[in-house]
Amino acid sequence: MNEFDFISTLLKPLAGEGAFALSDDAASIRVPDGHELIITKDALVRGVHFIGTEPASQIARKALRVNLSDCAAMGAKPVSYLLALMLPPDITGEWLGSFVQGLKIDQDHFGVSLLGGDTTRTKGELAISITMLGLAPHGKILRRNGAKAGDDIYVSGTIGDGALGLLHKYDTFLLQRYQLPEPRIALGQKLQGIATSCMDISDGLAQDLGHICTASGVGADISWPHIPLSDAARTCNPEPGIILSGGDDYELLFTAPTAASAQLAAIQGITRIGTITGGRDVKILDENGAQILLTRKGYQHF
Amino acid sequence: MNEFDFISTLLKPLAGEGAFALSDDAASIRVPDGHELIITKDALVRGVHFIGTEPASQIARKALRVNLSDCAAMGAKPVSYLLALMLPPDITGEWLGSFVQGLKIDQDHFGVSLLGGDTTRTKGELAISITMLGLAPHGKILRRNGAKAGDDIYVSGTIGDGALGLLHKYDTFLLQRYQLPEPRIALGQKLQGIATSCMDISDGLAQDLGHICTASGVGADISWPHIPLSDAARTCNPEPGIILSGGDDYELLFTAPTAASAQLAAIQGITRIGTITGGRDVKILDENGAQILLTRKGYQHF
Repeated sequence: MNEFDFISTLLKPLAGEGAFALSDDAASIRVPDGHELIITKDALVRGVHFIGTEPASQIARKALRVNLSDCAAMGAKPVSYLLALMLPPDITGEWLGSFVQGLKIDQDHFGVSLLGGDTTRTKGELAISITMLGLAPHGKILRRNGAKAGDDIYVSGTIGDGALGLLHKYDTFLLQRYQLPEPRIALGQKLQGIATSCMDISDGLAQDLGHICTASGVGADISWPHIPLSDAARTCNPEPGIILSGGDDYELLFTAPTAASAQLAAIQGITRIGTITGGRDVKILDENGAQILLTRKGYQHF
Repeated sequence: MNEFDFISTLLKPLAGEGAFALSDDAASIRVPDGHELIITKDALVRGVHFIGTEPASQIARKALRVNLSDCAAMGAKPVSYLLALMLPPDITGEWLGSFVQGLKIDQDHFGVSLLGGDTTRTKGELAISITMLGLAPHGKILRRNGAKAGDDIYVSGTIGDGALGLLHKYDTFLLQRYQLPEPRIALGQKLQGIATSCMDISDGLAQDLGHICTASGVGADISWPHIPLSDAARTCNPEPGIILSGGDDYELLFTAPTAASAQLAAIQGITRIGTITGGRDVKILDENGAQILLTRKGYQHF
């Protein structure tokens, strides 16, 4: 399959409004009145962000989902995306067909469409770069810099499953959590006007909470016994570091004033894990309030 | 240099309005009233799109420029960009410093700023993915699908220098044309309301003109003797195929009604090379009007 067949046969059916059927040098984006556009871009490389033996459809879906998760973290509704594919010689037409099928499944599921992009060969590793666009009512996007001392700290879902999935590849549930994260898009939009800060956990809760603290000029105390674990994770009896520094959660981490706790209690699937402090550090406390020191705080890409 | 040092020390100074100092999960874009936003995304891989021995600053500038050229082709004014870097182990802190210096030079030159992106390591090849955003007055963007039989066909600058530069690396002028293309941004904006179709030539004039013909449902006759060549290119005495199929020109290729010819005559640096026909094919004609057959039409990425 050559480049133009790939575009016209496989990619064109994914193209949406503003994509000009992928036949122009660029796409056009319409921003409705009263809205702001957000944009995020995350690249995935084989051997770094995915194993490589997964079905291509699953790799495509993960590539979309890590970007959708950034949209969720901003409280935005995702609308469209651009895709750059760097393809080594071992990639077959069949692989590309499966990859595009994965894009189609998650496009339909999350209501986004393809706007454009680029495909090129490489002598190096398979790499996928996605640029995701989202919309939020003007002034309503969630930032990292609004956490205040006394705010409660929450997470969505369960933490550490992705990291455990990568370690324990035999556990189907945990592996699925690593390979197919669930972007919390509806939650992100619900948090507009409630959360004082928000981000998605991609590089480990401890390190990522540090980013909120740095941006907001605050500290944080989180309670290890309050971290929500899945049954599968609990069975592994993991030390705190695997859960809190592992990354690949793609859950939302956010703060809100205690005054919002009743409102937040009505939202399913979130757990309060600690409190923002007037300090500068992220402290992890055990059931007796003693600080737990982690081997490392989180994932660094280089 | 680790990931966070790279972002905070080197990339943060490049961040512009809406980038939130690169400290959030996504950036925000403001689209002024009466304008539309265009978006394009082109990836560059070492060994495919650049040689690899160039100074890192030059690689950065080429990565920006090929994307700026897509903006120019749409008649848009570039405003900001996102950057994903996939870094193999041989990339040093010094290399990154030079790369960022290159970004800075061309940011200042073209009036764009960094909005966000991603850096990651790879075991494969160095790859750079850029997403460029531009603005155009609503309804004024240039498309590929408006060429009509009888329209004149024009190109900017000189054609084939980039391809010759890659072949004849000892010629400084030609090599520079390959390594540092000149995006025709001012020209693109001037062509709003005049050109019936426009694109930038990246994969060879003959093949790229074929894209305009397909999108517009027309054919084209171009005159080999009218193709503008630089003095350095003329010295190489190239056969037509090298010039017309080589790619890496990043010149604008556009069509306009003959009624606009007086208006276009006032624009420096463009040359009329042929005529849109009622056919379906791109024909290259010699000085006697006989058709020249090319070995291949243009570059395919895989």
